[in-house]
Amino acid sequence: MTAKGIQQLVENEIDKLNWKLTPYSLYEPIEYVLSLGGKRIRPVFTLLGCQLFDNTIEKALNPALAIEVFHNFTLLHDDIMDKAEMRRNQPTVHVKWDENRAILSGDAMLIKAYQLLAQCDTTALKSVLDVFSQTSVEVCEGQQYDMEFESRNDVSIDEYINMIRLKTAVLLAGSLKIGAICGGASAEDADLLYRFGIGIGIAFQLKDDYLDVYGDTAKFGKKIGGDICCNKKTFLLLTALKKADPETKAELLRQINANDFDKEEKIKAVSAIYEKLDIRTHTENAMKAYYEDAVQSLKKVSVPDEQKAELSVFAENLLYREN
Amino acid sequence: MTAKGIQQLVENEIDKLNWKLTPYSLYEPIEYVLSLGGKRIRPVFTLLGCQLFDNTIEKALNPALAIEVFHNFTLLHDDIMDKAEMRRNQPTVHVKWDENRAILSGDAMLIKAYQLLAQCDTTALKSVLDVFSQTSVEVCEGQQYDMEFESRNDVSIDEYINMIRLKTAVLLAGSLKIGAICGGASAEDADLLYRFGIGIGIAFQLKDDYLDVYGDTAKFGKKIGGDICCNKKTFLLLTALKKADPETKAELLRQINANDFDKEEKIKAVSAIYEKLDIRTHTENAMKAYYEDAVQSLKKVSVPDEQKAELSVFAENLLYREN
Repeated sequence: MTAKGIQQLVENEIDKLNWKLTPYSLYEPIEYVLSLGGKRIRPVFTLLGCQLFDNTIEKALNPALAIEVFHNFTLLHDDIMDKAEMRRNQPTVHVKWDENRAILSGDAMLIKAYQLLAQCDTTALKSVLDVFSQTSVEVCEGQQYDMEFESRNDVSIDEYINMIRLKTAVLLAGSLKIGAICGGASAEDADLLYRFGIGIGIAFQLKDDYLDVYGDTAKFGKKIGGDICCNKKTFLLLTALKKADPETKAELLRQINANDFDKEEKIKAVSAIYEKLDIRTHTENAMKAYYEDAVQSLKKVSVPDEQKAELSVFAENLLYREN
Repeated sequence: MTAKGIQQLVENEIDKLNWKLTPYSLYEPIEYVLSLGGKRIRPVFTLLGCQLFDNTIEKALNPALAIEVFHNFTLLHDDIMDKAEMRRNQPTVHVKWDENRAILSGDAMLIKAYQLLAQCDTTALKSVLDVFSQTSVEVCEGQQYDMEFESRNDVSIDEYINMIRLKTAVLLAGSLKIGAICGGASAEDADLLYRFGIGIGIAFQLKDDYLDVYGDTAKFGKKIGGDICCNKKTFLLLTALKKADPETKAELLRQINANDFDKEEKIKAVSAIYEKLDIRTHTENAMKAYYEDAVQSLKKVSVPDEQKAELSVFAENLLYREN
């Protein structure tokens, strides 16, 4: 099956999940967040991962849905913690209903993810469950670091990469590994796919950081410079702080620490510093390095190269995306 | 093993769980809530349930710990939703740290519960997982109803019983059933134990309602009349509203709707209405009926009566407790 076909199938299967349960007040927010769409990258990865080793994707379908439900659960709870009011151009759950509803529906959603996961082949169940739980708890660890970084001024690039590995990459990697396990892959191949996912995931998040500054507003969907305005410790900012000479660093810190500023001016000033330090190229190089590492891992997976094309192209497109 | 011995063993095993993980800021609140103690009723039920069918309790140990971790996760998140500041005479997690920490540590705790659960015998894994997830999501449903009842004035006794069945009884029942499955019980016996747990669980919550009015302050640990003061829709209040003649009902509603009142006066007035309507006896009878139903189910379990004594006495003590 093509990635596009799988993406459509995932969309249909998510639509078919039944949330008309009692009390509906608990399940309605779950139905709502899942209906808001998204790229469905993780379940597509799971099914592509399965397809590498098995002719059908059938065996990985429930785990794929479990992962998408889990991912949306993390968005739901993260939005409470980040006090985010909008998600995919719609009000977030704690805004549309209230915070209690968002906490509790999120909890139910996490349990529902496990219920879907448990519907995989019993022979694969223990392994699938172990990868899923390990991945899930690491996503929480990533979120904890992300929140802590907000109030820290000494975050290193290594710490940042570790944070995005946990918050973003492990779930992409886990999605692929779970698919591979369901498809009957060897432990070695499953681990290689996991490593592929880590590389792609880190490169994917670096691209996100990159698009905030170098994206095309019309295509990106978000306003350019949002991360700059709120002093988000992105790869770009941390690299700039590291590479800057004392004078440039002082100017960058002055921009960061300014309490009263004009948004456009700040974006312009910080972008100019990035330009001077060639942060664009540094970020592109870092992305390429993680992507290359990912590609090397995929190469080693013991199935014919032509069978890997669908996954390889899908991952490549994620990195060459403009939104 | 005696229930007392099992209780001590559970306490030791909980102490042995390692929460010195990174980032510790995520795991410290988990360590904290688990260290606050409690009766450990659910894991004791799991181990007693296992012991009924197996000579050892070994096979149910990890699921028992999983259930205790899950139970404390629900308390952690419920305390945020209920804005409770104290739990077991200590500050709640969202007070001691903050709300974000309480949400995220709770999430990690739920996942950790699944990780413990997954360490049971692989032959039992699927069944144990299904009971656990079904039970867990029902506990969320119970909490949702509980919150909704706060702002409703037409809650029926049936609705109330259904709410406490979900919020309290199913976890006791699920604890027993999971223990039974780990111990190798037949599906029929596991279901009988589940039903036993439901009866005990509902009677247990009715006793909680009862102690708020008829408990001995010194033994109860909480102030008498707390439920009356905040108009909590307990079995006692709902029964009084149902049984009262129009005049008494009007007086009871006047007490409930009063915005400005003296706490002691209100407790005295509502207690007097309960006295007049003999709510004490009604509640005792309801408790007895659920307890009797539970006992009948336990009787039908196909193991010799003497082997059931430990469980039967432990459950009985829960209902004759004074705190």
